[in-house]
Amino acid sequence: MSTARIFFISLFIAASVSAIAQQYQSLEFSLNAPQAEHVALVLDGKQYELQSNKDGVFSILLDSLKPNLYTYYFNVDGQAVLDPANPRTMRDMGNTFNYTIIGNADADLMCDQHVNHGKIEYVWYPAGNNKMRKMTIYLPSGYDTNNHKYPVLYLLHGSGGDELAWLELGRAAQILDNLIAQSKAQPMIVVFPNGNMYQDASPLTYYDDYPNGKIKWSNRNVRLSGQFEASFGDIIKYVESNYRTIRHKRGRAIAGLSMGGYHAMHISHYYSQLFDYVGLFSPAFSTAYDPVTTNTSKAKLMFPTGNDMPSVYRNVEQDLQKQFNPAPKLYYISIGNSDFLYPENVQYRALLDKHHYTYTYIETQGGHTWDNWRHYLIDFLPRLFR
Amino acid sequence: MSTARIFFISLFIAASVSAIAQQYQSLEFSLNAPQAEHVALVLDGKQYELQSNKDGVFSILLDSLKPNLYTYYFNVDGQAVLDPANPRTMRDMGNTFNYTIIGNADADLMCDQHVNHGKIEYVWYPAGNNKMRKMTIYLPSGYDTNNHKYPVLYLLHGSGGDELAWLELGRAAQILDNLIAQSKAQPMIVVFPNGNMYQDASPLTYYDDYPNGKIKWSNRNVRLSGQFEASFGDIIKYVESNYRTIRHKRGRAIAGLSMGGYHAMHISHYYSQLFDYVGLFSPAFSTAYDPVTTNTSKAKLMFPTGNDMPSVYRNVEQDLQKQFNPAPKLYYISIGNSDFLYPENVQYRALLDKHHYTYTYIETQGGHTWDNWRHYLIDFLPRLFR
Repeated sequence: MSTARIFFISLFIAASVSAIAQQYQSLEFSLNAPQAEHVALVLDGKQYELQSNKDGVFSILLDSLKPNLYTYYFNVDGQAVLDPANPRTMRDMGNTFNYTIIGNADADLMCDQHVNHGKIEYVWYPAGNNKMRKMTIYLPSGYDTNNHKYPVLYLLHGSGGDELAWLELGRAAQILDNLIAQSKAQPMIVVFPNGNMYQDASPLTYYDDYPNGKIKWSNRNVRLSGQFEASFGDIIKYVESNYRTIRHKRGRAIAGLSMGGYHAMHISHYYSQLFDYVGLFSPAFSTAYDPVTTNTSKAKLMFPTGNDMPSVYRNVEQDLQKQFNPAPKLYYISIGNSDFLYPENVQYRALLDKHHYTYTYIETQGGHTWDNWRHYLIDFLPRLFR
Repeated sequence: MSTARIFFISLFIAASVSAIAQQYQSLEFSLNAPQAEHVALVLDGKQYELQSNKDGVFSILLDSLKPNLYTYYFNVDGQAVLDPANPRTMRDMGNTFNYTIIGNADADLMCDQHVNHGKIEYVWYPAGNNKMRKMTIYLPSGYDTNNHKYPVLYLLHGSGGDELAWLELGRAAQILDNLIAQSKAQPMIVVFPNGNMYQDASPLTYYDDYPNGKIKWSNRNVRLSGQFEASFGDIIKYVESNYRTIRHKRGRAIAGLSMGGYHAMHISHYYSQLFDYVGLFSPAFSTAYDPVTTNTSKAKLMFPTGNDMPSVYRNVEQDLQKQFNPAPKLYYISIGNSDFLYPENVQYRALLDKHHYTYTYIETQGGHTWDNWRHYLIDFLPRLFR
């Protein structure tokens, strides 16, 4: 076993050091709301009170915003209101909000630039029980005009996400296009499955899964049942049968955020010889609490035990031993220092350290946010398939 | 020349006659808004005042809604508010609103059903001036598992739309999946280009086309310049080089709504021997007014004239003579009887009648609405490639 190779890097500090030319910008947000008493801007979760002029236009000028993607909506006397001047929206679970981008540095990677673009496909693959399930595929620019075989990254969403989340909230297509165009990432196929086995596709798809507009969220017993991990072979089989892929460990990567990190961890040890690159972004490790209600009082590293457990979870430590012998080329963990999953991440790293398993560790500021996950993806992609 | 073949059919009357079992349903809309004075539901443009209970929950029960897709939002003291209980949204130009579907009859065709699904691709094709432009492609179920050649429908959006409009507002993928699964439509490839030559992709795409969240709409001189029609060969070339298509008039259809009807009319006479199926849904025919500002006082049939006109518009009547000799298998026009474009449609049909050109005419109730266009698509698709 090699010695643990651990890096502590704050992406944000690194970014501000490397980009002296990074321009802070001011941005005015305004809303015409003559009947409103209070209007607030909710920008990435922070609330700012707006001031009204005599015509009932509420506004605020935020200066020194650093280049980044910002999500926002207005709170008008308790109601969430979209910005009528901005048609750019994103959906997170059941909520729709606006976004805006202040360019420069990493934020430019999150915008469509005038470079060669990959192709996005929404496909349906055959899963067990004669079901067709939906997933999203990114094919890099050039895929249709050559005969190369490409490496594949399987990129998994979190609890509450679906096969659209990384594309919409994560800006994955833009980040991939730009990093590939700049030769910072290898051209690769990226597969975005739906990790919720209680649905065949995003809850926007099947109307009968979703009567009267009410969200049918599943409880953790269904979400974290081991079914998704155990059936991951269906996805790999479809991808490797339908696309020109490198069918070898060195051509496969798997990564995910939160619940997707949990999935990526378990899939990569269960199929212990399939992936040479593993990425766990703000990963959950314990099933002892519900990631949605986030009862952190019970948050400790606890793999399911007992004979009634699904096979995926039955031999985690033995599987890890197989997975790390020989070690994957990259086993990458990133998390924010205020993430509610931080404590169990400490314990998981202690487990890896105990066995001298090699991994790369990135600790940033912030918590369990898409802002962090977009930056983790930007940091992770250049490390793949080298 | 054959005699004009004209059908007057109200789709809505036809639907209610054929579906005695069609169930009218009641639907309750409610919003928790304790600080609001007035809350209205705006349902497909109609406003309904909501009543509040003592806890500040505003609600209304609408009974006898007929099966259909409904769009809505709440008006809370003058502000548009999305339904927090319903994550299903659609965007029309810059506006985002909710939708809900009451199933049965045609409305079931607008829902994802558990049938075989086609694949959606977002691709970039090379246009003139070394530009890459974005379009959407629908490939029918089975395309990837056989070697058939497929017919192609080019389906064009209206003014203010883009390559996403028919998929999002038009429910085209669901309608295609369902009609093909029921053997009511032939399996076909459907191509959704972006008809706005002043943009390479939807305004959601390029950030520099769209600074500070402000929409950059172009004036009619740019939109209706003949450039899109003249360059349509780029699109056909890309599609016929990259997909297994029937490269013959009998395997090509073109249709569009409003400005897209204008485009389909001009493209199909300019490339007079390419299309055996033409569909004009609520088409614009005149360029004498701006379809966005809809100054109907100037609405009369007026093809551009003069030597400074783009070649596409220079010989419309001569081109039509070529197009109708021999006549296409289907030349389909549909419009609502309260559409602001109705008067110039009367004049265009008079022109066709004067020359005894054969066409199919569908007149419905209603105006210039996506509700009509979804139903026109359902009526049109089964007529293609027979």
